[in-house]
Amino acid sequence: MISKLISEIKKKNAPVVVGLDPTLKFIPESLLREAYKEKGKTLSAIGDAIFAYNKGIVDAVYDLIPAVKPQIAMYEQFGIPGLIAFQKTVSYCKEKGLIVIGDIKRGDIGSTSEAYAIGHIGSVEIDGNTVFPFDEDIVTVNPYLGSDGVKPFIDVCNKNDRGIFVLVKTSNPSSGEFQDRVIDGRPLYEIVGEKVNEWGLDSMDGDYSNVGAVVGATYPEMGKILRDIMPKAYILVPGYGAQGGKGKDLTHFFNKDGLGAIVNSSRGIIAAYKQEKYASYGEEGYMDASRAAVIDMLDDIRSAIGTK
Amino acid sequence: MISKLISEIKKKNAPVVVGLDPTLKFIPESLLREAYKEKGKTLSAIGDAIFAYNKGIVDAVYDLIPAVKPQIAMYEQFGIPGLIAFQKTVSYCKEKGLIVIGDIKRGDIGSTSEAYAIGHIGSVEIDGNTVFPFDEDIVTVNPYLGSDGVKPFIDVCNKNDRGIFVLVKTSNPSSGEFQDRVIDGRPLYEIVGEKVNEWGLDSMDGDYSNVGAVVGATYPEMGKILRDIMPKAYILVPGYGAQGGKGKDLTHFFNKDGLGAIVNSSRGIIAAYKQEKYASYGEEGYMDASRAAVIDMLDDIRSAIGTK
Repeated sequence: MISKLISEIKKKNAPVVVGLDPTLKFIPESLLREAYKEKGKTLSAIGDAIFAYNKGIVDAVYDLIPAVKPQIAMYEQFGIPGLIAFQKTVSYCKEKGLIVIGDIKRGDIGSTSEAYAIGHIGSVEIDGNTVFPFDEDIVTVNPYLGSDGVKPFIDVCNKNDRGIFVLVKTSNPSSGEFQDRVIDGRPLYEIVGEKVNEWGLDSMDGDYSNVGAVVGATYPEMGKILRDIMPKAYILVPGYGAQGGKGKDLTHFFNKDGLGAIVNSSRGIIAAYKQEKYASYGEEGYMDASRAAVIDMLDDIRSAIGTK
Repeated sequence: MISKLISEIKKKNAPVVVGLDPTLKFIPESLLREAYKEKGKTLSAIGDAIFAYNKGIVDAVYDLIPAVKPQIAMYEQFGIPGLIAFQKTVSYCKEKGLIVIGDIKRGDIGSTSEAYAIGHIGSVEIDGNTVFPFDEDIVTVNPYLGSDGVKPFIDVCNKNDRGIFVLVKTSNPSSGEFQDRVIDGRPLYEIVGEKVNEWGLDSMDGDYSNVGAVVGATYPEMGKILRDIMPKAYILVPGYGAQGGKGKDLTHFFNKDGLGAIVNSSRGIIAAYKQEKYASYGEEGYMDASRAAVIDMLDDIRSAIGTK
């Protein structure tokens, strides 16, 4: 799977991913009204409005980017109808040729992690009938439970040519509370990074591994160290844009081959129309505002890594 | 919420929770056949079979126990139809007067954790209409992202009188890989335990806090230390039975008042009919086998903690 992602990144000269993280306050009023008219003030109406909103953005930007990253929490928040919108989004994005990274941050004891892996990147055998439940291409995984919580995901990756990004150093302000604590002279995130490197060796796909890592754009110095610790891991970099990360902070996340990292922006793209810079598009022009924001983000990142 | 759980534990003299973690190989063939006949070899059929299976167990044991703990991965594995079965299970168990602990192990950056909290233990406002999407009473939370990933759950607990159990020391074999690493002379799980204690002070409900902890039955010595570090935290103890924990290992998880812990068994109860001890009930008698297994578990635990 990672070789497919790399090929799409090269083709579009775009090491970026758009985070499809809808919240009620981002969805244009007209889409909500229409959904309420159809289905009342229900979760089902919200699900429809979310999918319509996502579809608008995807149609506007799919030719510019290799991948999208729907954050499942933003859908799960709306119960079953929200998760139906998640599934429809995954499926629609794949139809448009995009690679889908399900930002699910799951992780549990072995048999339970296996169930999550099967549900999201694997398949279920129903008396001889094979079904792919959520069918993302790549998912994010939480490592707190250790190897036996991560390996079932890797087994499913290897079986179905899929990928994972393991949380190493997250982008949020208090990520350091546990992740930065020093163990034998080194922070926990480095120790997790070493494990990611080790796990990844069993899942190589070309020059990189199907086992990647999540490292926040908000911690560029740590990104530099982790880049060296995990030379074969693709790094998914959240925290660009709305969370404060800038293109020039990101150079260390990339290898000398210009590869090795993919930068996510969510709010900065999908709610671009709410920023002063793109306000002229108006609420109804949210898709075009998103496209303009993707073009600006690409310009910033290409400048920073020298692929402009 | 924790005071409600304690009251139910006392009323039934039963500090136990039954883990409703269905897998295909546990579900009696007759239930699967019936569902396939109705809905074909589909995820939807599996969802129906899971709910029928759970209902049989719940009807057989609800008078003996205060709470159930459905592990969402086992439902999510079967996509949307699986999650519909999860929701129906939550709702049915609440109708039967049981407290529902959603074993979801979610955790993310602040705004995303908030979305999970709203979806599982909170409510959504849809233009003036209040809806509770999954509506569990308590959920489990992963702490790897630190305070700002946990606090949104606590805020929602405080708003809606719900609870959380934060992963501190998990029951699986490789939990020590990161959780036992020594920081300033002490293992990470102790440092997380201290945080749980601190977070919990803002969410007291009687003698205990709505912020509890998960500590595996498979690590009784660590349970003893963590009991002291988190005096106000209820401890959810997985790993009893199938994973190897025994009643006598559990005494240290309890406080002197006989309270402070609730012990989970999943496979040991719901698939009791597959054990030699309960094999005479047969597959069709799986509910009665589960009831017998709950009675034996209660006897073991009451003996260990002296409430027999």
